[in-house]
Amino acid sequence: MSLVVVGSVAYDSIETAHGKVDRILGGSCTYIALAASFFTRARIVAVVGDDFASTDAALLAGRGIDLQGLERVPGKTFSWAVRYSADLSERTTLATDLHVFANFNPKLPDSYRSEPYLQLGNIQPKLQRSVRAQMRSLRFTGGDTMNYWIQDHREDLLATIRDWDFLLVNDVEARMLAGDHSLRRAAEKIQSMGPRTLVIKRGEHGAILFSGRQYFVVPGFLLEEVFDPTGAGDCFAGGFMGYLAQQGVRLDQGEIDHQALRRAVIYGSVMASFCCEKFGPECFRTLTHEDIDSRYREFKNFSNF
Amino acid sequence: MSLVVVGSVAYDSIETAHGKVDRILGGSCTYIALAASFFTRARIVAVVGDDFASTDAALLAGRGIDLQGLERVPGKTFSWAVRYSADLSERTTLATDLHVFANFNPKLPDSYRSEPYLQLGNIQPKLQRSVRAQMRSLRFTGGDTMNYWIQDHREDLLATIRDWDFLLVNDVEARMLAGDHSLRRAAEKIQSMGPRTLVIKRGEHGAILFSGRQYFVVPGFLLEEVFDPTGAGDCFAGGFMGYLAQQGVRLDQGEIDHQALRRAVIYGSVMASFCCEKFGPECFRTLTHEDIDSRYREFKNFSNF
Repeated sequence: MSLVVVGSVAYDSIETAHGKVDRILGGSCTYIALAASFFTRARIVAVVGDDFASTDAALLAGRGIDLQGLERVPGKTFSWAVRYSADLSERTTLATDLHVFANFNPKLPDSYRSEPYLQLGNIQPKLQRSVRAQMRSLRFTGGDTMNYWIQDHREDLLATIRDWDFLLVNDVEARMLAGDHSLRRAAEKIQSMGPRTLVIKRGEHGAILFSGRQYFVVPGFLLEEVFDPTGAGDCFAGGFMGYLAQQGVRLDQGEIDHQALRRAVIYGSVMASFCCEKFGPECFRTLTHEDIDSRYREFKNFSNF
Repeated sequence: MSLVVVGSVAYDSIETAHGKVDRILGGSCTYIALAASFFTRARIVAVVGDDFASTDAALLAGRGIDLQGLERVPGKTFSWAVRYSADLSERTTLATDLHVFANFNPKLPDSYRSEPYLQLGNIQPKLQRSVRAQMRSLRFTGGDTMNYWIQDHREDLLATIRDWDFLLVNDVEARMLAGDHSLRRAAEKIQSMGPRTLVIKRGEHGAILFSGRQYFVVPGFLLEEVFDPTGAGDCFAGGFMGYLAQQGVRLDQGEIDHQALRRAVIYGSVMASFCCEKFGPECFRTLTHEDIDSRYREFKNFSNF
């Protein structure tokens, strides 16, 4: 089954302790779709300018990603510049130029509308809602958000996530959204806002899945070196949703398959770990299913007792 | 088999977001021995002043801890005062009064010397070495250290840990000791300094075990509320070493039993998690084997996939 992915496609300039790249393909939609493409067909909804390179479109298409919903309009593609501190604990945004993304108003191709899986990248809650309303037979809506929407567009955000099955946030965002510093209580409060399934990302320290009254904690993969963390959270989302779509897991009826959700968290973590090993989405040029399976087994091995 | 524990016994004054206690029983030896006492007989080596309360001695003796090596000398017991920031990310030492601990020169009762398991709490490397030299038939030496010894007594520390089987440090200390920010590489470097088995503590984020070429990552227990983190690392050591002593695991000959080491890490994590739920070592007044087994199962349950 296919996964519809909505979010940004951007050009990123990234500086880490390991070097610097200019105008590398980025954006939440890009990372989610690339990671998901190893599990299922991803169909993207995003907007780019007339500077969008055919080689970048080719990278996406080469992974079988459906670009029918990738709108091209006159102007420049969203661009973003970021610098990470040496130990990666701090991230400074140097520039955010929305360009054509400022007027993004996602319209889903008709062929997308009957897909059962939807992952909403971190965009305006209103737009996330409008996308969901265009879908006809959803089985699983997942979405991401950020501090800006939580603080300054709270009502809008609450009205949006009310209808979601799955929310992905980091620990800071979870605490902010719930108004509680205890992650355990925060998770309960967020579940009562709508999404029965919640993953709280903790960067290098892994992630926690809450689903119904169950929870599952996975440590981060112990990379020898984090090259560039850009996109790791979105790759998690892509691996997680991609695996669920591949397996046809549903949350809208019947018993929740908790073991499948746990495996999805591991696949999400696997994809996030690969993402950090190279700049931008570079890892996806050479990554194989064998690499993914092997790292999944390594997760099993280092956490088994 | 018994575990000989060497370290400090102290009176702590602790302030966290949840309240304040004055002169509560503390010190590395106290926490290690109390946690270990749920698995094996702990025999302690430490020094206290004439202000040491009989009720505190009774708490230790009540857990079957051998106090023969607890020296009582004229003067005051080591005391320490600490304040934690609201989110527990920062710890400010308000006072350190060594008192009788300043002249601590551990002498092991003869009955201790043929025990096979030794855990050296965080004290002067020279003293740790002298204690080890007094043991006659060691099978497993474990020890702890801290930034002060790593930075200012490096040569001494290196000469000491060279003979250890097991080193317990936190992530900051591991990076400092190895001079490498990558925990994976740092672990390898530390293993080459002596201890083939190494646990790197990561506070609320759990711990990593490196043993030979294997590694094992365990997330921290997701407490609803951390009441007071004082002693958690030492309780980890006590649970870890206590379980290994109980099981008679050896590192000095034959194949390493990696599964037993992993279970020991879980028991260490379990004891650390209980420690954080009350002030000081209060939890040990009421903790039962059933509580420990139940939390061990919870670890299994939330990390199984």
